[in-house]
Amino acid sequence: MLSRYFPILRWGQTYSPSLFADDTLAAVIVTIMLIPQSLAYAMIAGLPPQVGLYASMTPLIAYAIFGTSNTLAVGPVAVVSLMTASAVGRIAEAGGPDYIIAAAALALITGITLLALGLMRLGFLANFLSHPIIAGFITASGVLIAASQLKHVLGVPTHGENLIAILQSLTSHAVQTNPITLAIGAGTILFLFLTRRYLQKLLRNVGLGEKLASAIAKAGPLLAVIGATAITAAFHLEAKGVAIVGDIPSGLPPIAIPQLDTSVWRDLAGAAFLIAIISYVETVSVAQTLAAKRRERIDLDQELIALGTSNIAAGVSGGFPVTGGFARSVVNFDAGAKTPAAGAFTALGIAIAALFLTPLLYYLPQATLAATIIVAVLSLINLRVIKETWVYSKSDFTAMAITIAGVFLFGVETGVVAGVSMSILLLLYRASRPHSAIVGQVRGTEHFRNINRHEVITSPSVVSLRIDGNLFFANARALEDKLLGLATDAPTIKHVVLMCSAINEIDASALESLETINERLKDAGVAFHLSEVKGPVMDRLKRTDFLDHLTGRIFLSQYEAMHSLDRETFTLPNSSSSP
Amino acid sequence: MLSRYFPILRWGQTYSPSLFADDTLAAVIVTIMLIPQSLAYAMIAGLPPQVGLYASMTPLIAYAIFGTSNTLAVGPVAVVSLMTASAVGRIAEAGGPDYIIAAAALALITGITLLALGLMRLGFLANFLSHPIIAGFITASGVLIAASQLKHVLGVPTHGENLIAILQSLTSHAVQTNPITLAIGAGTILFLFLTRRYLQKLLRNVGLGEKLASAIAKAGPLLAVIGATAITAAFHLEAKGVAIVGDIPSGLPPIAIPQLDTSVWRDLAGAAFLIAIISYVETVSVAQTLAAKRRERIDLDQELIALGTSNIAAGVSGGFPVTGGFARSVVNFDAGAKTPAAGAFTALGIAIAALFLTPLLYYLPQATLAATIIVAVLSLINLRVIKETWVYSKSDFTAMAITIAGVFLFGVETGVVAGVSMSILLLLYRASRPHSAIVGQVRGTEHFRNINRHEVITSPSVVSLRIDGNLFFANARALEDKLLGLATDAPTIKHVVLMCSAINEIDASALESLETINERLKDAGVAFHLSEVKGPVMDRLKRTDFLDHLTGRIFLSQYEAMHSLDRETFTLPNSSSSP
Repeated sequence: MLSRYFPILRWGQTYSPSLFADDTLAAVIVTIMLIPQSLAYAMIAGLPPQVGLYASMTPLIAYAIFGTSNTLAVGPVAVVSLMTASAVGRIAEAGGPDYIIAAAALALITGITLLALGLMRLGFLANFLSHPIIAGFITASGVLIAASQLKHVLGVPTHGENLIAILQSLTSHAVQTNPITLAIGAGTILFLFLTRRYLQKLLRNVGLGEKLASAIAKAGPLLAVIGATAITAAFHLEAKGVAIVGDIPSGLPPIAIPQLDTSVWRDLAGAAFLIAIISYVETVSVAQTLAAKRRERIDLDQELIALGTSNIAAGVSGGFPVTGGFARSVVNFDAGAKTPAAGAFTALGIAIAALFLTPLLYYLPQATLAATIIVAVLSLINLRVIKETWVYSKSDFTAMAITIAGVFLFGVETGVVAGVSMSILLLLYRASRPHSAIVGQVRGTEHFRNINRHEVITSPSVVSLRIDGNLFFANARALEDKLLGLATDAPTIKHVVLMCSAINEIDASALESLETINERLKDAGVAFHLSEVKGPVMDRLKRTDFLDHLTGRIFLSQYEAMHSLDRETFTLPNSSSSP
Repeated sequence: MLSRYFPILRWGQTYSPSLFADDTLAAVIVTIMLIPQSLAYAMIAGLPPQVGLYASMTPLIAYAIFGTSNTLAVGPVAVVSLMTASAVGRIAEAGGPDYIIAAAALALITGITLLALGLMRLGFLANFLSHPIIAGFITASGVLIAASQLKHVLGVPTHGENLIAILQSLTSHAVQTNPITLAIGAGTILFLFLTRRYLQKLLRNVGLGEKLASAIAKAGPLLAVIGATAITAAFHLEAKGVAIVGDIPSGLPPIAIPQLDTSVWRDLAGAAFLIAIISYVETVSVAQTLAAKRRERIDLDQELIALGTSNIAAGVSGGFPVTGGFARSVVNFDAGAKTPAAGAFTALGIAIAALFLTPLLYYLPQATLAATIIVAVLSLINLRVIKETWVYSKSDFTAMAITIAGVFLFGVETGVVAGVSMSILLLLYRASRPHSAIVGQVRGTEHFRNINRHEVITSPSVVSLRIDGNLFFANARALEDKLLGLATDAPTIKHVVLMCSAINEIDASALESLETINERLKDAGVAFHLSEVKGPVMDRLKRTDFLDHLTGRIFLSQYEAMHSLDRETFTLPNSSSSP
């Protein structure tokens, strides 16, 4: 029981020196990758660089205790950093002390939300986000992030939360572009593209092993950071207008609950909920993908708790909202991490960096960080999936288009909310149209099939409808409309039979609808019967007085029903007209 | 085509003197009933009495043109009047000129909303409101209305939008009770209960015909109004502190579009949407009940348009939101209304009353009106349905309880929103758990059934899951979890077969999930197959590259699939192990 909520108690029991060696190696590789990434994501969120490092420490330790994936690496990710900037930017000025506290508070609220969802087993809420909406949201966010980072590459100030405002602001400031900044930024972008495309192949050609070549190629951003920092320091480019990272306070994060007005907490609650859901969807998707490769399994409810405690950890240690990131988890997986302990060792690596390496980053140009962000988020932009969705389903494409337009025109939160609203509408629309068929007898058999698809026998006085799904509030009214229509449309009908073979549940709304149908059919002089009612459904109906009022009967089989009600029409070859 | 949107063109063609006679008689009876009711509902809404009369004129004419029910009578109803008071009360002081304009604006926005929903065929949105939520909402509103009217019966001032505030306010003012007002109010309540229970029987005993006796018994409120007005006028009770209706401006309603700030329109939009949905649900329920009694049919989408134009008519003629009311429609039906023209004739009757009868109502005590409201809304309170829901379904009961608590503690709008949110949660929860079964072969047959319910043959290397419903975003993730779990839980599994016999649709999310499942199973060394895919589903899958990547095959029948994948296990008695 305890190990259900603390998976560390399970894998910890069998932890061995060989697992320790594997996890340590993975941790070293992930740490190297995370240092520039943490700084960059802090920059997207509008936060000082050290906050990115803080968010990559305690959350990893929390995940190591509570997480069920052996390879997931939590920390800041691009999309959630953008959402943080959007939410916190509404209540405080970017980079100021209130802003930093609000970002930590946002992580704390996000974490509490996730934890509550996990304890209440409400993970199904993530289903609100359909694949097309997530795909549209991530692509649109990628474009928005890339656009928002262009200012650092050009060395100009811009504002605006939506794409149009950002692009307008960029255009109007373009004349102030700092040529050296631009050279560094564009150079970094070019370098990153080249290393990504050719470096691994090149290294293998000069004789390096596949694993090492791949590891070095993935260290492209780190190489860019080192190179650009060295050049800037050597030529003192900061004196020529190149914005640099500057002093990063060294040391470990302060542990404290972020102090803010209640009103601010309330303002952040909506954004925290959205971040919680999006983080969870992203985390589960990454964790499941990696787990399947090793035929491992993750626990969806426990992942909510793990991600929740990770965010709470980020919130009380001066960080900002964290997520199970795809890129870092894949690196962790490829580097051979065997247990969640690899994450805890990575946290240790980042702590060492925060304690001792920050002075080395003084001359790091912001343009280089922005360039690594731009190259990273371009991989989020997936135009193929947009095209495929268009080909496959116009309604899904509509939901996707609404999400993308929402993000571009009104920002990330509106985009998600618009997409989710559209999802709910689609769900309700589908649910309100249950698949159903009027059925007739397949000649000479006891089978009854859809009259539109099969050549079947029907009767002038008995009509039967089969509903292919549960009866509940979303389709209860449609059921009324359909069944009453059957009687109204054909004045010779004396009996309506509802074939219940596919019905596993009838909720209170549908029960009331059945009562209404029974009453209204009675008013119209038509009897209402049920056939093939499943055991559990029948048991619940018996708890009500529906069966007392029912004008017709309950038949065990559809054939029995139809034969009893119209012996002339529905017969078997070998049966006489008497029972 | 034109007659689809203007049903009057259909029934108008065959209109005859005999129909005219029937409709006129019904209109006279409904008019008599409507006069006190209109004044009373205006009082619930916090509006001057003539506004109630205005809302009972033009909307009826609009419905006569656009409506598809022959007997529905639109006008103010108790619950929507309460919602009007709640919405308009937030932006203006009750009874003032801004309040009156805002109430008309609310009707106009409600009407435009309904019209838009009708033209876009979005009537399914009403499915958001499950039966338990509506039942809970109406019962709670009834209690709230009765409580809010007690102040008129006691003759004391009270405030508050929720039940607790109203009751506290009543208690603290109870000592100021005006004894004469209380006598009139309590007397009216007693009179109404007695007439309702005994008058019809009494009249029949003294020899009156059933129809006439029933009609007179229903005129109880009118008799109470006449009696109380006469007594008050005779003894000049208004001088002794009895609040009277006073001057009601006579004349027809002014035709004008209500002029208000854009911000007010925006403030009213949410309330208007709720009122639109609740009005529609109430209207459709009443119209369908009455239509079924005569084996007539109503058009659900056209009813949105009819109710929309009725509300727009109310909005531009100084009224407030209107609905198809149950009580008045039943009276209209019983009185023999044959076409929507009866409504138009009723409007004429109300117009005559507004022109000539208002001076007669000068001495009408407010306590009498409040008493008629209290007696009327007590019939809304349905404790039996609460108990029945508790017995039948705990989850439905929870939704109902949340709605009732919401109305009592925070007011009508919060109550509905809380209930609807709960409905959506329940819907999503259900949708996220599709009914599914691992299937095995029924010995000696080609049938495959649920392994938990039947004695069936299974294989160590092949597992097959049947999903009983469509695959779409709400259950896509559950599908991934289920299918991947099948492979992970049993390491000997080499093939997973998804039996698609009940699947009519696969949306883009589910398609992506199938691709994910295929990939992950591939990573785990397991092949993924489909069986019994329906024609239209297959056609859409062929538009994608899913089938190119599929590691397994598509089988026409489940038996063929299982037999091909494990010839040792799945055989028929007469089949050999070769094909």
